[in-house]
Order: sequence, then structure tokens, then C-alpha cells
Amino acid sequence: MESLNFLLPQSEIPTHWYNVTADLPTPPPPPLGADGKPATPEQMNAIFPMAILEQEMSSERWIPIPQEVREIYRLWRPSPLVRAARLEAMLGTPAKIYYKYEGVSPAGSHKPNTAVPQVYYNRQAGIRRITTETGAGQWGCALALAGQMFGVETRVYMVKVSYDQKPYRRSMMRTWGAEVFASPSTLTQSGRDALVRNPNHPGSLGLAISEAVEEAASRADTNYALGSVLNHVVLHQTIIGQEAKKQFEMAGDWPDVVIAPCGGGSSFGGMAFPFYADNAAGGRNGKTVRLVAVEPTSCPSLTQGKYAYDFGDSSGFTPMMKMFTLGHDFTPPSIHAGGLRYHGASQLVSQLYHEGLIEVVAVPQLATFEAGVMFARAEGVVPAPEACHAIRVTIDEALRCKQTGEPRTLFFNLTGHGHFDMAAYDRYFAGELKDFEYFEYPREAIEESLRHLPNFA
Amino acid sequence: MESLNFLLPQSEIPTHWYNVTADLPTPPPPPLGADGKPATPEQMNAIFPMAILEQEMSSERWIPIPQEVREIYRLWRPSPLVRAARLEAMLGTPAKIYYKYEGVSPAGSHKPNTAVPQVYYNRQAGIRRITTETGAGQWGCALALAGQMFGVETRVYMVKVSYDQKPYRRSMMRTWGAEVFASPSTLTQSGRDALVRNPNHPGSLGLAISEAVEEAASRADTNYALGSVLNHVVLHQTIIGQEAKKQFEMAGDWPDVVIAPCGGGSSFGGMAFPFYADNAAGGRNGKTVRLVAVEPTSCPSLTQGKYAYDFGDSSGFTPMMKMFTLGHDFTPPSIHAGGLRYHGASQLVSQLYHEGLIEVVAVPQLATFEAGVMFARAEGVVPAPEACHAIRVTIDEALRCKQTGEPRTLFFNLTGHGHFDMAAYDRYFAGELKDFEYFEYPREAIEESLRHLPNFA
Repeated sequence: MESLNFLLPQSEIPTHWYNVTADLPTPPPPPLGADGKPATPEQMNAIFPMAILEQEMSSERWIPIPQEVREIYRLWRPSPLVRAARLEAMLGTPAKIYYKYEGVSPAGSHKPNTAVPQVYYNRQAGIRRITTETGAGQWGCALALAGQMFGVETRVYMVKVSYDQKPYRRSMMRTWGAEVFASPSTLTQSGRDALVRNPNHPGSLGLAISEAVEEAASRADTNYALGSVLNHVVLHQTIIGQEAKKQFEMAGDWPDVVIAPCGGGSSFGGMAFPFYADNAAGGRNGKTVRLVAVEPTSCPSLTQGKYAYDFGDSSGFTPMMKMFTLGHDFTPPSIHAGGLRYHGASQLVSQLYHEGLIEVVAVPQLATFEAGVMFARAEGVVPAPEACHAIRVTIDEALRCKQTGEPRTLFFNLTGHGHFDMAAYDRYFAGELKDFEYFEYPREAIEESLRHLPNFA
Repeated sequence: MESLNFLLPQSEIPTHWYNVTADLPTPPPPPLGADGKPATPEQMNAIFPMAILEQEMSSERWIPIPQEVREIYRLWRPSPLVRAARLEAMLGTPAKIYYKYEGVSPAGSHKPNTAVPQVYYNRQAGIRRITTETGAGQWGCALALAGQMFGVETRVYMVKVSYDQKPYRRSMMRTWGAEVFASPSTLTQSGRDALVRNPNHPGSLGLAISEAVEEAASRADTNYALGSVLNHVVLHQTIIGQEAKKQFEMAGDWPDVVIAPCGGGSSFGGMAFPFYADNAAGGRNGKTVRLVAVEPTSCPSLTQGKYAYDFGDSSGFTPMMKMFTLGHDFTPPSIHAGGLRYHGASQLVSQLYHEGLIEVVAVPQLATFEAGVMFARAEGVVPAPEACHAIRVTIDEALRCKQTGEPRTLFFNLTGHGHFDMAAYDRYFAGELKDFEYFEYPREAIEESLRHLPNFA
């Protein structure tokens, strides 16, 4: 019986993260402060520890993973590389399909890969409390888990409407000992101001960020953590692609196409960048690998955005980064793939796309659920809506292979399971997701918000 | 860095199930029909295929696992054997703690281990439709998954109150293509009768069984499947203990105590019986292993029940089995560990307990959640309420080892994750589970239902 699961022993958990900055064709444009001058680590030290800021700015190719972090990674890593043989058979494709399953982490997604080192470095710097924001709760869960592992108090500002309507990730955060507050809260000035304006304020991710940053900036023992977009976050996620390369060697195979969902960019970068390293060096045995980021048509920052300096958050608190952006005040339609609802894309992913070194595809929501259900019926695992985006493009590639007869090897990032997203599947089966189709390409909203870009493009 | 996860390659998925009947000190008492005469396979062939009934009655020690079943097992098996090193450190115990994690199956529990072969044998017998009942949905999910894998239509009668209040496992069954009906339904006579008596009938597991069995018995192309209690179900679960034995060899360790939750008995038997095989042969290197079944004090069939002939279902449709029972019309309090709310225990588990070959411990609900939260904070995984019962007893053993200084090796069955049970954790954190304490040992209800035992004890 052929093995479908390529098992990597825990001794093979990577010892270093891979920093793609070292292999970029040109140095990355620096982040800029509101004054248009390059932002310095010192400016950001109020809410991030120096070790993280050094990683953010580093151009070293390999950055060592602390032993304490690898010991926590052991709780669920290496994650499986699985051959989706039943999906191949269902599609009748000559393509081979593999996936990396990040849903095995206790939090159910790839997010703990960066939550754990972020909490670790903060703890090393003497920080006792970490704040963050969360929408549906995936990132909040990851940070709560990591906080518990290192004994750092975790305080999560959860968008009120999710806090009320999606209680189960909130319960999970509490199980791991985190404190969770509905945002807007009365704990911060930002929250109180919002409640004065509207006592029934439903909350927003931008407002929750403001609350978390305000608390972190106002207390010396407290820092802030972010779950995507920034360079150090993408860096931490590169253990995904590194493990996968070892597992493909075990399988005696190698991907022709690497496919991952792309919101802020860390799940795509984490999986694709270690393969990009080979491309940058002329390819593996002279052969390069296609790297495909998948975004929703409702929030198409890469395919429809502008490559320009913009703020990382919706309120304009952060330094500006040069990235593909829909404008920082663009509010994406509420698709179920909450992790892909970001107005921009990581500056590293943006730069590689700008230079023509990666591909990007945008897919509509309904088609992603169709793909997710097909995957669940073939392979068992019910995927998270974010992961369904990668599955859609993988299936489309596999069907193209069926037409052309090419036996390509396709590899996608199954970033998480859908156990906390079953309400979205319900709406799909009920036909209610069709209602979202008019959001698919929100041209006017994008044009409007692009007019508000800061003037440093 | 020491490995905590003992990885078994897929080539080591067991080729045979272990049938404990071959190693019982005395032959098991036969099931009896309502007339008091031994029930024959032919009588049950209306709803079960012969291949399953042969397994139910077999005394062969090893029963081959069909290749097609092993190929589906490959989607998630072998399941991990994990050393809970952080829990050990948290408790400060000299004991070593290991767990087998069955939550990695797509359905999130050990139930697919038997759903897959049950559907396979039905498919081989030409059956196109399978019916079953489900309460919270764990068994229904497992059968829906298995039905999808072999192209057998799956029809699940789900207790109405769960259908309405716990929609997410219902959505999961639909994602795998099953049809799910609120029970009582208008599809069966049993359902219609119940609705005539009470148009707002909330449903019950007994009634859902009646509906599923009625549909299966009335159609030649349709059979019925049960998720625990019966011998063939326990048999299929023995892959858990068999894999574990190979993994302990890899780890260079061996359990002194094997601990598993016990409702119908299949998760306990599946884990413990392969270790019992060594005990029956005089022990491994002369050393026997303690086998501990854990039941809730609110439904204490083994510790407070009577060893007597009783019906397997609450309505008296099934043959009678000799087992520890609280009486078939005992209704357990609605604790959150729905999988442990069964009035009896597998006749195999019952016989071994009667003969003094296994131990049983009953634990109260509140203490199980306390243990589950402790486990989640140490190891990450949030356990299902059923599994929390085994964790409670494991922690208690580990704390005894701390007192005595004995470095025992403890091994428990983490039968599933708690992703669909977060509402129960919420109630625990809110202090609401204290309300259940008066249920802890429902002495009067048990005495009352024991008076209704059939007269074949």
C-alpha cells in the first residue's frame, strides 16, 4: 500500500527561518514614517521588541530559530505533506496533487508558527503582557496558545460583532487562558471614543487594532503582536515551505506549481519563498517552480491594487510600506474568508509580484466553496474558507492538465480546517452565498479608496 | 531535541483487527432474542450484512482488514502517539504520560475507524443506502464521511433538539453528502406516531434509533449501522491499540497503565484489548498492564449497574446482551460527554470487568473539564468532553506517582478534539456546570430502571 503521508521526524523541524530579502533582485523599499522619512526600529520599539524589529529589517538569508521555539513547534510540527490521491482520481487528472496541512496545529491554522516566536521574543525582552486584535478569532487563538506556552498574559480585542456571533473561537482563547474583550471596549480611549459616538458600535478590525496598540503603547510591560503582513511574520512562516521541500525529497517528487491563499501574505510567503530561493539561484536542476498567490476577487489587492506607499492599518497609525494596496480605507465585503480581507499585501509579496517573479490569480467566493466541498468529499478534511481559495486554483490547474495531458505536480497550502466555519458552509448549501456575487469586484469602492492614498507613491 | 511524536509509517497500518473473544477466559454469553433463545445472525440480517454478523459472532483471534478499508484509513492513520512532556512538567510528576490522538480523523474522533469498514462491508453486500441515528452528531459525521468514501447514500436521523441547537456537525455531515433529518420525522411510522403524540416532540436517541432501524428494515437496499457497543464495532477500533504498541516499541517505552473513556465501550476496548492480549498470555516479559475504563458518575453502568441480560436500545428492539446495565429505560442526565450517555456497556468490556481483568473508575463532570483545561494549557489540543474523562484519571494517577515517587508510564486515549464542544467549555468557565453536580450519582433513577430489567439475568 502506497504511502500518501510523507512523515518528517521532529528532528527535521527547521533550525533556521529563510529570509527572502537576501534573494530579492533589488533591496526592498524602506518603510516610511508619516513625515516621509524612513521609519527606524527605535520608533517602533514602544510596541515591538528589538529582536523582532531586527528580523523585520534583516537582510541575512538564514535566521536561527531559538531552541525554545522549536520545542513548542514540536507540539504539532512537522505538519503533514499529503498526496491527494482521491482528489486526483475524482478529477481524472494526470496531475499529481499534494497539500501541506497546517490545520493540525492546536489552533487549527498556520498562525501559531509566528505567534510562538513572537511571544518568545517578547518574553525574552521582559514583556509580561501582549495585546492584539482579532476578527473571527483565528489569530487571537494562535496568540492565546503561544501566550499560554510561555506564561505571557494575552489580551485580545475581538471585533464586537464576531465576539457576539462567533463565540467558539472566543471560548478557545479562554481555554488557553487569554482575556478576550469585545471591541469597542471601555478599556481604551479609542474604545471609549467610539462608544460615545455610537453606544451600539459593532466594532471593526481597524478599531480593534487601535485599542490593542493603544494599550501596548501606554504600558512598559506590554507589547503588541500582528498576525500577518510584516516581514518577520512572513519569515516565521517559512518553516512551512522548508519542511515541504524535505518531504518532497522523501516522496521522490517536486512541485511544478506552488499555490497558496494570499491575504496579508504570510501563508503564501511562508510556503512559496523557500521554493523562490531555488528559483533565484537559477532553479533546481535548472528548473524553476511557478509560485501562485490566490486572492479573492472581492478584495483583489494584488490584481487590482496600486503598487504604492500606504499605511498598514486602516487608521493610518503604522509606518507606510510600499505594497500593492486598494487604499488603507478600503473596506472589503464580508466574505467568509476573513483572513483574506486585507486592503494590501505584504511588501515582500508585493515586490516579487511587481518584479514578475510570482503569479497572482483572483477567484470568486462561490467557486472557492464549490472547490472546498469537492476536496472534503475526496479527502475528508473540511477546509477553512481561506484554504478553499488555493484549492480552487489547484483544481483548475489539474483540470487544465487533464485537457493537455500534462502530468504536472501541484502543491497547495491547506492553511487550516473549517471546524469553526461551518456556518459559512451552511450558507453555501442554502444558496445564500450567491448574494455575495455582486461584491465580486467592487470597482467603485476601490477607485474611491485609491484616491485617498498617501502621496509617497 | 527529543521527539515527542512517535511516527508510524503508513505501511504499518495494521493488516488485521484483534478479536478479544479469542482470549476471554470463558466463552461470551450469547445474545438472546425476546423469547430467551440465542439470537441468530439470520434474524439480524435484515439490517446488517452477513460479513458484519460473522465478525459479531467470531472467535477468531485475528480478522483481516480489507485492503480497501486500509486505503481509506490512510487518509488519517496511523494516528499520532504523543508524549505529553509539558503536562508532566506542569504536574511535576515522575510519571511519563503518553496519549494516542484520534482527533486527527476528518470527523475529529475515533468513530470513522468503524464507520469505514461498516460501510465497506455493506457496499460489498450490494447495499446502496445506510441509515443511522445521531445525537450531537459525532457518529453521524463518521458515517457520512465513510458513506462518501464508498459512494453509499447516508441518511442520518438526528435528535431534533441537537439538530436545532448544534447545527455545525449537521453542516459537516452535509458537506460529506449525507442527508440529515430532524427526528422525529414524518418519514417513518415511529416518527409520525411520535409527532401525533406531541407535535413539538424534542426527539431522543431511542426514537432516532427506531426511525433509522425502521427505514433499514423496510427496504432491501438499505441497512443500518451502529457506532459503539457491538462486538464488531469494538473489533474495528482495535487498530488504535495495535498501532500504539508499535509506537511504544519505537519510543523504547511501555505503558504500566492504559486509560480510556468508556460509554458503549468501543474506544476503551479498541485501545485496551490489544494490551489485554499480552496480559492474557502472561504479560509482556512477565509484566501485565493495568487497563482502566473511565465512566461518568452520572451514568455509571459498570460501577453501579447490574451484570444481567438487557436490551441494547431503550425501546427493546434489539436482542438482549449480557452486560453491565443501568436498565434500558434509564435516561442519563444530559452531561456534555454525549458519547458516554449509554445505559450499558459492551458485553466484552462487561465480561472482562466481571472477571476482574480490567478496572473501572467513575468521575464527575466538573472534574473532567478541569482536567481538560489543564491538558489544553499544557499540550495545546482542546479535548472532547469524553476524552476529558480519561485525562482526569491520568492526571490523578500522575499525581499519585508524584506522592510515591514511582516513575510509571501512563497512556490514555485522546478520542477526539473539542472543536464542536466549545459551548460546553463556555458553560464550564461560566460556572454553570456546577448545576449538574446533583446528577452525579442518580441513585433513585438507576434503582427504578433496574426494576424493569428483563427476566433473563
